[in-house]
Amino acid sequence: MAAVKLEILKKDTRTKARLGRLHTPHGMIETPVFMPVGTQATVKSVSPEELKALGANMILSNTYHLFLRPGHELIKRAGGLHKFMNWDGAILTDSGGFQVFSLGDLRKITEEGVEFRSHLDGSKQFLSPEKATEIQIALGSDIVMAFDECTPYPANREYTKKSAERTFRWLKRCKNTLPTTEKQALFGIVQGGMYEDLRKQSAQEITELDLPGYALGGLSVGEPKEMMYEVLDYTVPLLPEAKPRYLMGVGSPDDLIEGVMRGIDMFDCVLPTRIARNGTAMTRFGKVVVRNATYADDFTPIDPTCSCYTCQNYSRAYIRHLIKADEIFGHRLMTIHNLHFLTHLMKEVRQAIAEDQLPEYRKQFFADYGYKK
Amino acid sequence: MAAVKLEILKKDTRTKARLGRLHTPHGMIETPVFMPVGTQATVKSVSPEELKALGANMILSNTYHLFLRPGHELIKRAGGLHKFMNWDGAILTDSGGFQVFSLGDLRKITEEGVEFRSHLDGSKQFLSPEKATEIQIALGSDIVMAFDECTPYPANREYTKKSAERTFRWLKRCKNTLPTTEKQALFGIVQGGMYEDLRKQSAQEITELDLPGYALGGLSVGEPKEMMYEVLDYTVPLLPEAKPRYLMGVGSPDDLIEGVMRGIDMFDCVLPTRIARNGTAMTRFGKVVVRNATYADDFTPIDPTCSCYTCQNYSRAYIRHLIKADEIFGHRLMTIHNLHFLTHLMKEVRQAIAEDQLPEYRKQFFADYGYKK
Ligand SMILES: [Zn+2]
Ligand SMILES: [Zn+2]
Repeated sequence: MAAVKLEILKKDTRTKARLGRLHTPHGMIETPVFMPVGTQATVKSVSPEELKALGANMILSNTYHLFLRPGHELIKRAGGLHKFMNWDGAILTDSGGFQVFSLGDLRKITEEGVEFRSHLDGSKQFLSPEKATEIQIALGSDIVMAFDECTPYPANREYTKKSAERTFRWLKRCKNTLPTTEKQALFGIVQGGMYEDLRKQSAQEITELDLPGYALGGLSVGEPKEMMYEVLDYTVPLLPEAKPRYLMGVGSPDDLIEGVMRGIDMFDCVLPTRIARNGTAMTRFGKVVVRNATYADDFTPIDPTCSCYTCQNYSRAYIRHLIKADEIFGHRLMTIHNLHFLTHLMKEVRQAIAEDQLPEYRKQFFADYGYKK
Repeated sequence: MAAVKLEILKKDTRTKARLGRLHTPHGMIETPVFMPVGTQATVKSVSPEELKALGANMILSNTYHLFLRPGHELIKRAGGLHKFMNWDGAILTDSGGFQVFSLGDLRKITEEGVEFRSHLDGSKQFLSPEKATEIQIALGSDIVMAFDECTPYPANREYTKKSAERTFRWLKRCKNTLPTTEKQALFGIVQGGMYEDLRKQSAQEITELDLPGYALGGLSVGEPKEMMYEVLDYTVPLLPEAKPRYLMGVGSPDDLIEGVMRGIDMFDCVLPTRIARNGTAMTRFGKVVVRNATYADDFTPIDPTCSCYTCQNYSRAYIRHLIKADEIFGHRLMTIHNLHFLTHLMKEVRQAIAEDQLPEYRKQFFADYGYKK
């Protein structure tokens, strides 16, 4: 019995969207789902109780960061990441691959793995498929991501092919490192850049390993949106229907909806928490840059239609004051709103699937938000 | 009918401590009370609900900071400070005097008031007794503090005398500026430095104005603790029994207890929130510098005997990780614990008064905390 299993409740007839339930060792998650990012064992500024209250039951945390600080062995001694951070919901951890490959001159890639220097203290470190998996085993995350290279954009065909092939060899080593599949589920990652044949080859190879779930990596890395949608169009159908599909690093409202319509079940993104810090809110009617002077005397909520804690209790003027005064509570109020906005968006998306209204929902949402088409 | 009225429930027989209830337009406050500081219309990192949960029903906010940003007129348009910051408990505002006098070369004092340059943008500003009172009227705080000079330590007798006399003249102007005493209560401030005759003169003069409450200023400004206690010993008895007494800027556990035993009802201090940021916790058994390496692998709470949200759910190791990683949530958890510690301390002090055990409580607390005597 796999640790993580997708129960599909309904398939949309007009799109590739699916409505489902992801069963994990830490609860059932309704899909499609957006996962907030808790990089350093905390979703910046908010508490586990607040996450639950705003509708988040599954978060992502980062292997690279936790490996360097406080260290996975310490978290293991604490009883695992869930206990360490007081989060009883589900956790997906990335593999650290994305971060170490982003280090540029600070890393050296071999078939064995990646040697790199810590961004914290410059110390020499090493991550390999085995090591990245062992770290995630120590963390005790419900979903363990394979150690891969997120191919940059643009990348030439030859590099992309070699990279995707190595990612596949590494995936087999990750699989061999995870001793049991009953407590933690390993997800493989489709790479292949923007090349259709390479994506297809990658998808075909990794699905042969019969993993409990599959992710699409190397997207939302700077390519035009249309190009990402095209990759989804030809790649997602190659993944087994019964398994969860996770589009990594995607979290703008339009991409969430477009992804769902192309058959994606899971998403994560730092966007809502990152822009919160700068005083930018996502609302049904587009972005609201609360920091702007135009809101100085605006005593209405960020979004009058929003049911989040922030919008129920605080005004744009107050939040603007907090952000300008560099007050932590402003960051917190903005984060709560933005995360609520995305979890609420996904809730509406699930309802639209249930009611056979997804294309209509998309049309209305895009019009309200101000997206062009 | 005064806006703020103290109901004395019990007077301790062996000390000058009083157990009471401070009735304010925003609820009843049990005294002696410690007020957390919310400088910029927020108690750094925590929500109003969290403040209530940890036992705080009255906070202090700063006129100087709110005057400069976002401006008292804006807060007035928002419906007052309570509404602006979503706090339905009581609020005491200081007068801004302490901050402008601390500006050193950036300010010029005349009989009329103090001209100074904003620390935010260097703009020229002016505060006078009338202006400071008008600002606090706009903020709508329950207790309005008089515009005074907090005489520095050390200061010679002549300067201290002139300063205290000006403070008294200014107090009369503050009183004339507050049109009604039914919604907001003006507290006068005893000054006079460390000079017994000047303190007595100041206390005598200001109490003749029959104000709803009195504060002791110019203490905890660098003088030895024994000297502060001595000033309390000869000053507090000169204040009318029926009125609340507020010792400004005091918040270390020993000073709170010593202050209560000398007849003080109200305290405020930035200490618990300030040291929280650096990872220092106050506990029954003394300070715990959670940031220290010794706690890296310590999976026990900050204080195993503490009933706060932080200690009920998080370990020293986790909080240390958050503080070292500069994570906002660490600051928040530490602030909750430290504020809970002080509100809980005051609750125990009130209980000790009720049970005629205050000297015994003090003795036990000092022994546990590690104070010398
Ligand atoms: Zn909201
Ligand atoms: Zn505690």
